[in-house]
Amino acid sequence: MMRILINDTPNHIDKEVLVQGVVAARRDHGKLIFLDIRDRSGILQVVVNPKLSEEAYKVALELRPEFAVALKGIVKKRPEKLINTKIASGTVEVGAHHLEIIAHAETLPFDMGGETLNLELPTLLDYRSLTLRHDSVKKIFLIQAAIAEEFRKAAKELDCTEIFVPTIAAGATEGGADVFKVDYYGHEAFMIQSPQLYKQIMVGALERVFVITKAYRAEPSVTTRHLSEVTMIDIEMAFINSFEELLDAFEFVGTAMIKNVSKNHADILESLNIEQPLIANKVPRLTLREAQQIITKRTGRDLSKELDLNPEDEREICLWAREEHKSDFVTITHYPTKKRAFYTYPDPKDPEYSLSYDLLFKGTEILSGSRRINDYDQLLAAMKERGINKENFGMYLQAFKYGMPPEGGFSFGLERITMKLLELANIREASLFPRDMERVDERFSITEKKDQQVHKEKS
Amino acid sequence: MMRILINDTPNHIDKEVLVQGVVAARRDHGKLIFLDIRDRSGILQVVVNPKLSEEAYKVALELRPEFAVALKGIVKKRPEKLINTKIASGTVEVGAHHLEIIAHAETLPFDMGGETLNLELPTLLDYRSLTLRHDSVKKIFLIQAAIAEEFRKAAKELDCTEIFVPTIAAGATEGGADVFKVDYYGHEAFMIQSPQLYKQIMVGALERVFVITKAYRAEPSVTTRHLSEVTMIDIEMAFINSFEELLDAFEFVGTAMIKNVSKNHADILESLNIEQPLIANKVPRLTLREAQQIITKRTGRDLSKELDLNPEDEREICLWAREEHKSDFVTITHYPTKKRAFYTYPDPKDPEYSLSYDLLFKGTEILSGSRRINDYDQLLAAMKERGINKENFGMYLQAFKYGMPPEGGFSFGLERITMKLLELANIREASLFPRDMERVDERFSITEKKDQQVHKEKS
Repeated sequence: MMRILINDTPNHIDKEVLVQGVVAARRDHGKLIFLDIRDRSGILQVVVNPKLSEEAYKVALELRPEFAVALKGIVKKRPEKLINTKIASGTVEVGAHHLEIIAHAETLPFDMGGETLNLELPTLLDYRSLTLRHDSVKKIFLIQAAIAEEFRKAAKELDCTEIFVPTIAAGATEGGADVFKVDYYGHEAFMIQSPQLYKQIMVGALERVFVITKAYRAEPSVTTRHLSEVTMIDIEMAFINSFEELLDAFEFVGTAMIKNVSKNHADILESLNIEQPLIANKVPRLTLREAQQIITKRTGRDLSKELDLNPEDEREICLWAREEHKSDFVTITHYPTKKRAFYTYPDPKDPEYSLSYDLLFKGTEILSGSRRINDYDQLLAAMKERGINKENFGMYLQAFKYGMPPEGGFSFGLERITMKLLELANIREASLFPRDMERVDERFSITEKKDQQVHKEKS
Repeated sequence: MMRILINDTPNHIDKEVLVQGVVAARRDHGKLIFLDIRDRSGILQVVVNPKLSEEAYKVALELRPEFAVALKGIVKKRPEKLINTKIASGTVEVGAHHLEIIAHAETLPFDMGGETLNLELPTLLDYRSLTLRHDSVKKIFLIQAAIAEEFRKAAKELDCTEIFVPTIAAGATEGGADVFKVDYYGHEAFMIQSPQLYKQIMVGALERVFVITKAYRAEPSVTTRHLSEVTMIDIEMAFINSFEELLDAFEFVGTAMIKNVSKNHADILESLNIEQPLIANKVPRLTLREAQQIITKRTGRDLSKELDLNPEDEREICLWAREEHKSDFVTITHYPTKKRAFYTYPDPKDPEYSLSYDLLFKGTEILSGSRRINDYDQLLAAMKERGINKENFGMYLQAFKYGMPPEGGFSFGLERITMKLLELANIREASLFPRDMERVDERFSITEKKDQQVHKEKS
């Protein structure tokens, strides 16, 4: 007999089926045992009645949450008043006449039977292999997979080719100090801080590329929105003819991803009590200075000396975009040149500011990027001015030495987008196995820790 | 005026167009200059005639390979005898009346104008940022992108969800010694040798998953088919009901990828002189012992004491599959249990051998996998027997403690598949920026090197 998936059971009414899944919950009602069985498609109610099968009933008495079972039974329509609209198989139940345990589980450390988990973050992560199975957690990662897929679709619409870049590099890709060192056959090497340098090289060959890769930041800080290992989803495009072409490109990708995921998975958003995001026909665009003036007008805070938006500013300008433009997105351009990476193109009209941008969504930056310096001599000068040793950038500089058309690009953080779309309180909830300075799967014991300055962000 | 792509020019005959691209070659013929211009879509012949535009001609005289240009001109049909069937725009040429340099390039270190590059591997890699632009090299990575895409399609047909797993781990994922160490905030951590442990954990939550990730092997060896950083494309499936279900799954994915890529990109294979691969309706399946007996019969070599196939054996059994089954694929099962990783399921009928498999393609293993031990106590016993410290596998073991259905999976090497499909001599050619013990982009200088035992493989 062939196994069928749970959400297919309503198509087999009054027929015998074989279902395989995991016990999500067991409820004993007098002489009846009710089981919630979970497979990759959904959740099914199974009734075990000793009158139907004494043997199945004996097996059911042994069952605990997370036992894997195979069961045979007849699919029965539920009476109208017992229909459960929260699950796809809610119009039926299966009366089991055969029940078999295919894997045992130890007693769970906490109740997983409810609609939500109600665990503190440390417990959620200490038991990650278990908590990831809960429906409310699983949904986060179904959404994350959908975001990646919609990103690739949008990237292909822009005619980008997928590339696979290395993650071990000879130099610190973004110049900074917060970089993980690797012992590379006795040489010192670094985990990339972004795929930036390689995607730039590659537009010399393929003109438009996209990449999904891990990137690593050894920031000695614990915040609700930073991870030490993140998934970056990036695009880079050459032969750009205007700055606006770049803005159009990332606004297209950003809004297409969010719109399609929210529409295609409206059921998941609804079940997590997330409203459909507001996506206007046109994403409002502001320069940093314009955004600061708006925030000052709204809050009275003087930002005239600030070179960036802090988290509070980002929330405020997103509120403005929502109120004034019915948009959960807002584009901010022209950050100060010295606040951005060395490869950022200074605005020819005012070189203090750069042809750079962030895309904010629901109060937080989810994307960053810029037009890049593509002239070899200009790039060398920019590196020299910042004291960056060109020795570590040989392969990168080679691409510019042998000609590079005008180009630019942008980078999303996959966990950041997932977090914002699902309104999660902490980015760790948007990473299957989050890496931060306190844990690699399991928490480091205190005695293991070196003395380190830890910056805890307030926001 | 809007830019059009080069391969779109045949749709604009006798019209004026704007083209942007890079100079692939310049040929001076008396008073005419011919340019091969390259963009992401293809290559175009441009004629610069001083009678048409003295100014354009002056610019053309300055051009060298890899200069980026913008040009305007009229698309003209070529006379029948001048049609170039090797390029998609070969029925037309453009007579330039406006030509503009948008990026300069230094003089190239070697000629890039030919159909092939004819460089030794070290030069190909020393100038990687440049050589990746050559059509013959670029095509390798267009095929690689297509393989990844077809993999995802096949994985989705199997109802797998994409996951993003960490690459920094607390323990050595495959147990072995050849692992890169990372200084993780003062703690010792490791780069994953495979996504194995995490994808196994995840089938407990999502039942069927796929993952594309980097994996790292610090093997102190230099061979034509190993890299220190590889791209693994993996699937893992729970609730399997038979060993054959796993074989069916990976043979489906493997043949679908190769078949679809070869068909959809028949032009690239043809241009690289690669024959269409032989894909039989049924991939021949042999146990290791059966394969060894066939090889012995064909070659007279006694393999009765060998526990694995060596590269020579793999080539021989692939020849057999091609001759006897018209198949470039062959599946080998039942490798000795002690030769495989600790999580491999021993065959209940003969526990000396395991429910493991490799998929060979055109003479080399491109996939490896097995049914896994899913019982917690059995897994603990297997680890103990091999002297593996369970302390480093806490999160992994948690998944089994709380119940794991029967499961198994498999792993392809993306660079390995690319190499075999395109019959490349060295796997480094199938990696954009290959990582090995001799280089990270640039070669390590000899003085930098520590004294290390290097094993150079003969094959």
